[in-house]
Amino acid sequence: MRRTPFLLADGRELIHFDCDDAPPRETTDKRDLEPRGDAPDLRHDPLLDEWVSVAAHRLGRTFLPSPDDCPLCPSRPGYLTEIPSEDYEVVVFENRFPSFVGMPDGVGVNGIFAQHAAWGRCEVVCFTPDHEASFADLTPQRARLVIEAWADRTATLSATDGVEQVFVFENRGEAIGVTMRHPHGQIYAYPFVTPTTRVQLDSVERHLAETGRNLYDDIVAAEVVDGRRLVLESEHWVAFVPFAARWPVEMHLYPRRRVPDLAALDEAQRADLAGVYLELLRRGDAFFGIPLPYIAAWHQAPVRLRRELGALHLELFSVQRSADKLKFLAGSESAMGAFVNDREPEAIAARLREVADR
Amino acid sequence: MRRTPFLLADGRELIHFDCDDAPPRETTDKRDLEPRGDAPDLRHDPLLDEWVSVAAHRLGRTFLPSPDDCPLCPSRPGYLTEIPSEDYEVVVFENRFPSFVGMPDGVGVNGIFAQHAAWGRCEVVCFTPDHEASFADLTPQRARLVIEAWADRTATLSATDGVEQVFVFENRGEAIGVTMRHPHGQIYAYPFVTPTTRVQLDSVERHLAETGRNLYDDIVAAEVVDGRRLVLESEHWVAFVPFAARWPVEMHLYPRRRVPDLAALDEAQRADLAGVYLELLRRGDAFFGIPLPYIAAWHQAPVRLRRELGALHLELFSVQRSADKLKFLAGSESAMGAFVNDREPEAIAARLREVADR
Repeated sequence: MRRTPFLLADGRELIHFDCDDAPPRETTDKRDLEPRGDAPDLRHDPLLDEWVSVAAHRLGRTFLPSPDDCPLCPSRPGYLTEIPSEDYEVVVFENRFPSFVGMPDGVGVNGIFAQHAAWGRCEVVCFTPDHEASFADLTPQRARLVIEAWADRTATLSATDGVEQVFVFENRGEAIGVTMRHPHGQIYAYPFVTPTTRVQLDSVERHLAETGRNLYDDIVAAEVVDGRRLVLESEHWVAFVPFAARWPVEMHLYPRRRVPDLAALDEAQRADLAGVYLELLRRGDAFFGIPLPYIAAWHQAPVRLRRELGALHLELFSVQRSADKLKFLAGSESAMGAFVNDREPEAIAARLREVADR
Repeated sequence: MRRTPFLLADGRELIHFDCDDAPPRETTDKRDLEPRGDAPDLRHDPLLDEWVSVAAHRLGRTFLPSPDDCPLCPSRPGYLTEIPSEDYEVVVFENRFPSFVGMPDGVGVNGIFAQHAAWGRCEVVCFTPDHEASFADLTPQRARLVIEAWADRTATLSATDGVEQVFVFENRGEAIGVTMRHPHGQIYAYPFVTPTTRVQLDSVERHLAETGRNLYDDIVAAEVVDGRRLVLESEHWVAFVPFAARWPVEMHLYPRRRVPDLAALDEAQRADLAGVYLELLRRGDAFFGIPLPYIAAWHQAPVRLRRELGALHLELFSVQRSADKLKFLAGSESAMGAFVNDREPEAIAARLREVADR
């Protein structure tokens, strides 16, 4: 794998990830870009003890551009995009409208209200120059290159001042709010441990105190023994629908040998993952016979706090509840955090096995 | 206020709430209804330590019926609805497709997996027989009657075996998943303390240990002193946009004198609330000049656990981020619980003051 890093016209970093034999990449951004605006504000919610990024500049961000107007396509004569080169394999660059950006700064406290600049970093990961493709269309070689880029960025961002957790994810489909159709994912480097990870690690900590074992390990083992919710097993990976699935389509994917994050995956785990991940995405699209809108969320151990308890795993889920209906998060879910799932987890798993490539 | 309770054809309870001088109500349901299906299953998520209701029968529920076909309109000759009477003021009845139903039963545990019947109760609250109206169109008298019904049901459901928390809410607008346009709200009587309430009470408990004061009281006091996020103040109520608002439109409403739930509101607080609540809803509709899709969520203290720490308050929020765009909960919010708000809380409050009725 070859890395080609350089700076865009407004100072943001861009990195090409290519196979070793790829042609050299253009490293000069010829656009005349205005500097990015102020860093967003990070505010502490005293009631939920969570941090909220207030990023007012994002209101004006690019919204569903056409292929003729797509900032994630390669540049071509007369049309300059975020990627100066006329071709690429995988590209990672800093988001022009970030929710988190910059280096640690002071914290302001006024009674019960605390706030500081929303430092951290938000990156865009372009999976392919083909505007009309999706991740599931990638070759295993290209998927493997994406995995290498994810691992590389996780390692680098984890070593960055002020970053507490690195989140690699893909939002796919307008039904979940995607504003650019070009196949891409994102990486958020947060200045805090996220609420979901914190709650998971609280459970892991309790379970460790009670049993001496890691809860993530015990969940994977229990799903393998039970078997009714298994989606697939490979040499190094296990995918299943969780016992208490919240979404009409949901799959969790764990390496059999627990690691903290993508950077810690060994060669054999990475090689196996490319095929497994593509297979899961294809089954997702086959579930209702439509391109499945999904959120693919790579949970990683925090950079410092309770890192030893964490476990890399993928939680992939969809709001699609039939070929023509969506699940909405209404009062019970959005306001109280209490989920109601219309579909039995065992039935979700059965469908995901039924649509397997044979 | 006059209560007229009776049973529908399949054994569900219906209660008319009317002014004292209203005509008598029809109490015989002439429909031939099949009994409701099995109770949903409640499953414990070991990783997030939360309960998820698996209610497979809800997949077939009524979806956006036309006014000619609406089950929440009064009955008329030749067309029988959920409400046998030809007119009503406010009606509450048990949901035909409940996420929670029935009395406590045994709990099944299999290693790390626990589950039991999703006991509890789900009710529908019809605010008006007028299919085309919305809550904001109600007269103060009718709004007051709804408040009385909410308080009455909160008291009764709180005294019901197995119920740990009563949640009164309204989902308004198809953008947040409403499947029936007829103006109505819902009440969920949960067999657990909801995740959001649990997290709030953890913060309240910590704050009490540190300061000797109730966090809810301190938040209201701090918002009144700061003033920049205030929306309105009345004799008995204070509304503001929270310091770390998560949504493009969000308002919290607290009584100045803390009470655990709607049933504990005194006469003066209730009388004042009717006008204040209608005013907040009207300002919501004026925010973008369109009927605002919203979730209006009444947070109440749990029935038993840490009840003394809780505080009745309304959290009303919308996914609408401009007249023609919605906010979606994508990867950061849905998967990690980390919110990004595109709109500054002080700007939301300024707009909500600007559109006030004068």
